[in-house]
Amino acid sequence: MNAEVLAVGTELLMGQITNTNAQYISNKLLDLGINVFYHSVVGDNPYRLKESIKLAFDRSDIVIMTGGLGPTQDDLTKEVTADYFGLNLINDDESLKSIEEFFKKISKPMVKSNIKQALMPEGSIVLKNNAGTAPGCIIENNSKIAILLPGPPREMKQMFEEKVFSYLRNKSTDIITSLHLKVIGVGESLVEKILEDLIENQTNPTIATYAKDGEVLIRISANSTSDVEGEKLINNIKDLVFERLGNNIFSTIDEELESVVGNMLIEKNVTISIAESCTGGLLSARLTNVPNISKVFLDSIVTYSNNAKINLIGVSEDTINKFGAVSEETAKEMAYGIRNLSNSDIGISITGIAGPGGGSPEKPVGLVYIAITYKDITICKKYNFIGDRMRIRNSACLNALDLIRREYFFNQNL
Amino acid sequence: MNAEVLAVGTELLMGQITNTNAQYISNKLLDLGINVFYHSVVGDNPYRLKESIKLAFDRSDIVIMTGGLGPTQDDLTKEVTADYFGLNLINDDESLKSIEEFFKKISKPMVKSNIKQALMPEGSIVLKNNAGTAPGCIIENNSKIAILLPGPPREMKQMFEEKVFSYLRNKSTDIITSLHLKVIGVGESLVEKILEDLIENQTNPTIATYAKDGEVLIRISANSTSDVEGEKLINNIKDLVFERLGNNIFSTIDEELESVVGNMLIEKNVTISIAESCTGGLLSARLTNVPNISKVFLDSIVTYSNNAKINLIGVSEDTINKFGAVSEETAKEMAYGIRNLSNSDIGISITGIAGPGGGSPEKPVGLVYIAITYKDITICKKYNFIGDRMRIRNSACLNALDLIRREYFFNQNL
Repeated sequence: MNAEVLAVGTELLMGQITNTNAQYISNKLLDLGINVFYHSVVGDNPYRLKESIKLAFDRSDIVIMTGGLGPTQDDLTKEVTADYFGLNLINDDESLKSIEEFFKKISKPMVKSNIKQALMPEGSIVLKNNAGTAPGCIIENNSKIAILLPGPPREMKQMFEEKVFSYLRNKSTDIITSLHLKVIGVGESLVEKILEDLIENQTNPTIATYAKDGEVLIRISANSTSDVEGEKLINNIKDLVFERLGNNIFSTIDEELESVVGNMLIEKNVTISIAESCTGGLLSARLTNVPNISKVFLDSIVTYSNNAKINLIGVSEDTINKFGAVSEETAKEMAYGIRNLSNSDIGISITGIAGPGGGSPEKPVGLVYIAITYKDITICKKYNFIGDRMRIRNSACLNALDLIRREYFFNQNL
Repeated sequence: MNAEVLAVGTELLMGQITNTNAQYISNKLLDLGINVFYHSVVGDNPYRLKESIKLAFDRSDIVIMTGGLGPTQDDLTKEVTADYFGLNLINDDESLKSIEEFFKKISKPMVKSNIKQALMPEGSIVLKNNAGTAPGCIIENNSKIAILLPGPPREMKQMFEEKVFSYLRNKSTDIITSLHLKVIGVGESLVEKILEDLIENQTNPTIATYAKDGEVLIRISANSTSDVEGEKLINNIKDLVFERLGNNIFSTIDEELESVVGNMLIEKNVTISIAESCTGGLLSARLTNVPNISKVFLDSIVTYSNNAKINLIGVSEDTINKFGAVSEETAKEMAYGIRNLSNSDIGISITGIAGPGGGSPEKPVGLVYIAITYKDITICKKYNFIGDRMRIRNSACLNALDLIRREYFFNQNL
């Protein structure tokens, strides 16, 4: 089976929004073992939309469409798709009830045009929208499958996860089981080298690696005849990968490093405080993205200036004069200072040169020191990050989070 | 003239990256008055790529392709496009020299496969890549135009801005001049109402509004026979829009609010310090994204806990007990406290409930207080933001930046 993702919406062609839906859906289809050969985007124009649907079904078995399910005259996806298949649109009572309930829940009056959203192609499988008003649907017709999903990513994702994923999984003759392992601290080429024999000898499961923003994703995918067999196949390889990469793997589900670290801190009730210089609050901002982090996140100070380092968290003026604000010594005193001030279990600090200015031959742009202090241990690591200001700041945050994870949670008894 | 954006790369179809290039290019083409009717994405497969190129030229005058210009065997865009037009690929001396120089600059040896990148379709206009190794090119053939650009967004954008924009502008019989005004503090529907007569009576220039992440973009676009006339047409409407929206307009070029505010602070040498609670460092992180901000950015403290508010910046315990941590009184004392501690010109604070937990009927999720203090003035504003944790935190930062801009820079003598 192969599939095509067809997004409908003039706002995409005008560059008002990015087609993130296509990426999300492609990723999921990859996990399902369904090939995606094309993405396309067409505007809210019935002629061009119909031509695009025709073209898509000429070359693909499954066409997943996003957008154009709204209540306005411009929203034509259901109408044009039904027309393509020669189907009528009929009112779906349950969808209408859901839409009415949705408006009741948000205490807003339902506009008459919303009734249009409950019209569904006859014989289609209706997909309830639990995050908005537009229901989706699946049309099966002569071995072709059209899946119509709402455009807003939040609504589309929820519908895909709740309904479409299992639908497609059941459609396949083979059962594909996939696992994503997220790795930090080892570059993609080294990961490939470490897993070389597994990758070279792969048949089933398959293993692939992808680099992204300082992390490496390992995708293990098995083809089997049952869920149990699929999981067994996956687990065999997973165990081998874990044996070789160990703590470099920070997640077996698709989650961010800050969530992993934040939830570890919350679970173990370990309090933390942060002193940042070149990252200017970014590490704090990322960590406080995690719900309930307030239970363990005490203070964070952005000591951008030398004065702040000295006056607010007690870095010694001598240290800064002798070694500079960007140095191992200053980083350590920052970590120690903030921990002392906050009386937290962990103190962490970042000081470096994010650029574009401020670099020198001895201390170039990208030089960053990250220090952590806990119990009677204080450790500082030196990094030379590459890229622009934004990338250097991001790399620093990622590595600081990783330092907490490794030092505090995995090496504390070493 | 109408155009199509064709992205080439299997990594897009596997969901590894998002096709942000299509959005960027569409936006620019809109400014040039060139219609975009389709986006498409195809993998690194010569058969499907050629079919896609054929299809694109069947329905569009200009096809802008991104990706597939790299040194590997997978990179086929030039080869397949030249084949489609029946052109040979010939070595371009200047491109080869540029590629050699690029590797010299980054002190890395040039791999032999990079020589392939200097092969260009005969008769094409070569586009030098000032940000990477892959040159682009423009092929003009029987009233059709193919524009081949590198896939990495940074390289693509730089090439588009330096070369492609003016090329396309000269190709048009009409000269399109566009201006983007960015607005904050007024919703899209109100902006539309304020400009109603201008929008309704528009012929040339045209005016359109778009809402995005708490901001509104106003696009003014004029069709003329010369640059001078175009600018005159634009300026007439621009003046009218400024008369009505005044300081709600924060930028006449495409820049972020933090850059506008950050650069205002740097230019006027106004120092600032920040105390954040629910935003957890996000405001500091955004402001410190601005290069050279260290000249005026003194301190920032994330006072997440009540203890931090009391001990670090001197919020009175009584105030917190009496009014709560999320209150006008606490916000004001936070702003005053951080300004006092840092001895900065401006102190700004944010305290609120970002959710998902922590809300109550009296103080619901989304309630945020933002206070600013400067000279002998201290002002606090109350907001009720909607959306999830991320959106509430973003809205709070945006409004804090706007408060600095309006209060300090525009109303200080009122």
